[in-house]
Amino acid sequence: MVSANLKKKSVFVSGKFCQGPNLAKAENFSFSVKMPGNTNNPLGSNVTAVSVDQIPGLNTLGISAARLDFAPYGEVPPHTHPRATEILVVLEGTLLVGFITSDSNHSLITKVLNQGDVFVFPIGLIHFQVNIGKTNALAFSSLNSKNSGVITIASTVFGSNPPINPEILAKAFMLDVNVVKALQWKF
Amino acid sequence: MVSANLKKKSVFVSGKFCQGPNLAKAENFSFSVKMPGNTNNPLGSNVTAVSVDQIPGLNTLGISAARLDFAPYGEVPPHTHPRATEILVVLEGTLLVGFITSDSNHSLITKVLNQGDVFVFPIGLIHFQVNIGKTNALAFSSLNSKNSGVITIASTVFGSNPPINPEILAKAFMLDVNVVKALQWKF
Amino acid sequence: MVSANLKKKSVFVSGKFCQGPNLAKAENFSFSVKMPGNTNNPLGSNVTAVSVDQIPGLNTLGISAARLDFAPYGEVPPHTHPRATEILVVLEGTLLVGFITSDSNHSLITKVLNQGDVFVFPIGLIHFQVNIGKTNALAFSSLNSKNSGVITIASTVFGSNPPINPEILAKAFMLDVNVVKALQWKF
Amino acid sequence: MVSANLKKKSVFVSGKFCQGPNLAKAENFSFSVKMPGNTNNPLGSNVTAVSVDQIPGLNTLGISAARLDFAPYGEVPPHTHPRATEILVVLEGTLLVGFITSDSNHSLITKVLNQGDVFVFPIGLIHFQVNIGKTNALAFSSLNSKNSGVITIASTVFGSNPPINPEILAKAFMLDVNVVKALQWKF
Amino acid sequence: MVSANLKKKSVFVSGKFCQGPNLAKAENFSFSVKMPGNTNNPLGSNVTAVSVDQIPGLNTLGISAARLDFAPYGEVPPHTHPRATEILVVLEGTLLVGFITSDSNHSLITKVLNQGDVFVFPIGLIHFQVNIGKTNALAFSSLNSKNSGVITIASTVFGSNPPINPEILAKAFMLDVNVVKALQWKF
Amino acid sequence: MVSANLKKKSVFVSGKFCQGPNLAKAENFSFSVKMPGNTNNPLGSNVTAVSVDQIPGLNTLGISAARLDFAPYGEVPPHTHPRATEILVVLEGTLLVGFITSDSNHSLITKVLNQGDVFVFPIGLIHFQVNIGKTNALAFSSLNSKNSGVITIASTVFGSNPPINPEILAKAFMLDVNVVKALQWKF
Repeated sequence: MVSANLKKKSVFVSGKFCQGPNLAKAENFSFSVKMPGNTNNPLGSNVTAVSVDQIPGLNTLGISAARLDFAPYGEVPPHTHPRATEILVVLEGTLLVGFITSDSNHSLITKVLNQGDVFVFPIGLIHFQVNIGKTNALAFSSLNSKNSGVITIASTVFGSNPPINPEILAKAFMLDVNVVKALQWKF
Repeated sequence: MVSANLKKKSVFVSGKFCQGPNLAKAENFSFSVKMPGNTNNPLGSNVTAVSVDQIPGLNTLGISAARLDFAPYGEVPPHTHPRATEILVVLEGTLLVGFITSDSNHSLITKVLNQGDVFVFPIGLIHFQVNIGKTNALAFSSLNSKNSGVITIASTVFGSNPPINPEILAKAFMLDVNVVKALQWKF
Repeated sequence: MVSANLKKKSVFVSGKFCQGPNLAKAENFSFSVKMPGNTNNPLGSNVTAVSVDQIPGLNTLGISAARLDFAPYGEVPPHTHPRATEILVVLEGTLLVGFITSDSNHSLITKVLNQGDVFVFPIGLIHFQVNIGKTNALAFSSLNSKNSGVITIASTVFGSNPPINPEILAKAFMLDVNVVKALQWKF
Repeated sequence: MVSANLKKKSVFVSGKFCQGPNLAKAENFSFSVKMPGNTNNPLGSNVTAVSVDQIPGLNTLGISAARLDFAPYGEVPPHTHPRATEILVVLEGTLLVGFITSDSNHSLITKVLNQGDVFVFPIGLIHFQVNIGKTNALAFSSLNSKNSGVITIASTVFGSNPPINPEILAKAFMLDVNVVKALQWKF
Repeated sequence: MVSANLKKKSVFVSGKFCQGPNLAKAENFSFSVKMPGNTNNPLGSNVTAVSVDQIPGLNTLGISAARLDFAPYGEVPPHTHPRATEILVVLEGTLLVGFITSDSNHSLITKVLNQGDVFVFPIGLIHFQVNIGKTNALAFSSLNSKNSGVITIASTVFGSNPPINPEILAKAFMLDVNVVKALQWKF
Repeated sequence: MVSANLKKKSVFVSGKFCQGPNLAKAENFSFSVKMPGNTNNPLGSNVTAVSVDQIPGLNTLGISAARLDFAPYGEVPPHTHPRATEILVVLEGTLLVGFITSDSNHSLITKVLNQGDVFVFPIGLIHFQVNIGKTNALAFSSLNSKNSGVITIASTVFGSNPPINPEILAKAFMLDVNVVKALQWKF
């Protein structure tokens, strides 16, 4: 069903108001990611999400997508999607991608990807993508949830609102309390 | 888990033998679709699948992908995926895409897509993609199942093995029995 | 829960307004398919659906049913249920039933069924039922979804609204464009 | 997939060995319930199950069925299906059917059903079917699980092996310990 | 999401009105079971539920809990949870726990548990817990559903509202009709 | 079903060999967490898991548990469970618990819990538990998966094997590369 605003003929499914199938229109099933994202930021990357907020027809269908732009040496830092597996295809440039397994070994699985290479990041695992080339890089990802969620590790742990007690993080990360406080101030 | 051949340390999940997570290797999570598919065929199109047979790590993860190549005016003819929704992004050229709703109205939803446009085909609905430009076209699709299935309507209905009794199809398609027999001979 | 109209004490589940369990009444869990369907039509068949629209209590319970009536030589033409497997029992007469597998072999699986015979049509596969006897036939089917969906191949592909461009269908079905246009006019 | 014995080309899905789809045969998807069940027993009823053990093709498809025969005044006593909702159609005779809601009110929902009447028993709830006519009755049920389970209350509670300590049941059922012991001896 | 009353910023998920994640508050994710339940009743036991009605944040999360208090020789009588498996840990005292399998053997599985012992009751099976010590006993259970349901066999079967026809129960339980009537009067 | 070693009568479900229900034994459904875990470590905490490896009967049942021991001021550091929601009850002492929401606000939700207090940590979110009292603390948790997974943020990100390129982490955590290298050496 297609998500909708609250009006006549709408019903309510999975947290979104919906239109009946007889009101389906093409614009409810499409979106453009033609425009590059702005990578002029400290991480040198930009993620343009295509989820149920951009494509109302995705509601209840269990899939979403994203355009990933990278400046040279830009990175999408370690993060997890709590509700989705991600499949990524490189369209331009060269990416180093990796994820860490959830066994006690903390195995790091990495691979250098070029144009046309596809890689899978399993649900819930911490992973990252880094442009290791001198030129811009571009990738397209799909995630098997209409609302996969993103938890960027560093900004979530050190940038929470309010901050976590610095002594808790100092013990967890084996860092000096003052280093933790400085990190929390930055995020 | 990663699908595996039958050897020591393997377990069996969802129809595939699997290695434990401590045996995870990058090649089990990646695949290349760099090479264009061969579109030199009557439909002028080619679909290169990226599913659990190509990426063993996809087992149990619920996602797969495909590269779609189109010669000028080539088409991926009407088909359904019985177990997946598809999200497609156009990388080159201009596609006319469409699906038909499952209500009694049989509404046809179509859209012309250019580079960077994203479109969603809901699970189980009949849909198609046609290159309406004078140049090759290229698209990348993801499907939210490790094994989405493809039922191409024409070749399944008229090309089954053995053939369906022509009189059944003649009545269903309001065609002359001889036309049905000719179709069955072609497929 | 039982679907309901919008009044006090109602809550909203899975696209239907619901009454609390303390308002459950027997009429919300029952329906009659005593009356034969009218088979006086070109296909010589009639399907009487028993889904959440007839039995409000089916909401969220994941099952529905149908009565199938056949005139002599009548047929339920090739169709799919995108969201359900079907189990059918023959109550009167003799049916030829079949489905086509989703592998590239397009294998056709058929069987002649008499009174008391049960047959299963797996989710998403194209299937059909034909009365091959000289008398009326009657069957009862159950489907494991409250809303299984029905996509009748011929009327969906050739009877969409608006019609699919005839050249797309001509190439897909290896038919002359004029034959396609004639079919679209009939449906 | 079709369940199979252990031989070449078989894979293993959901606790059953399976054949590949290219080995699908019609007999794997059908079964006959033509023969009436023997109702010459104290309850005056008989249930002929049609589940994955009778129809190998049901494996992973999530549906099963049963033929219910009743002698005059016979009953299928109070029971639950822990993993399925049941939909029943009466084919001959007159049944009184009922279920008890799971709220603290223990509401009993009953209805008298005649030929062609359909009734739904929601998953996990205690329910029963009784022939209230002077003639045999016949019904056909479908359940949305390949293996719905049946827990007949009386024979499970009083006929367990070994028996439950009679004092536990005496307190639970507000019965004299000797009455409980007598019941356990009967079952 | 957190269940909420009907006001601004609320959305509706799975039968409960919800607040957006930015309105999450700690009290929506916590509850106290510090106080012992009152066991001064014929069964000598008390169950304090912790489900979505007590912890609004449990909505859609698929888990709930309960505190179980037992007077000496008190019991939680035979019951089922139609939608959850239960895992129990004994905190004080000595319990005899058991469940009956769903195969035709009706096998009774029992174990005596002391402080620190954990036991699992599989979904849908009839089970019970009895304090076999001379002191109070205390246990804590978790169930993998936000709303597991409880069907206490004796009070549901003999205490339904209205009562089940006594002759149906007399035949099912092999009891005299007058004994059934007496039981129904007690419950 | 109960997980088993490879012998006669065993079947294979969800990655574990299983015995038929007629072989169910009480020891397959129980485990003891009577013994305190050893908290003599830098974090001052210990988690004793009770999952399918300890209780074979948990296989396919979707629940597991854990005993959490804390020395004074000990902590279970920030971590996620990729496949489960956790419900925790405090049995002794005083814990500060918290989780961070997945919205861009990174809201930190915390609460001080005493004996008898219950708290819920939603699936996939980063959370922690800290003993803020001068005495030992004890808690019991349940998770709605037989195999919830644990990703401890600090040891996973900084202790992977092989290590993540320090420059990637330096940019992600806004730390000096030498601080990252020192952290990776510690973990």
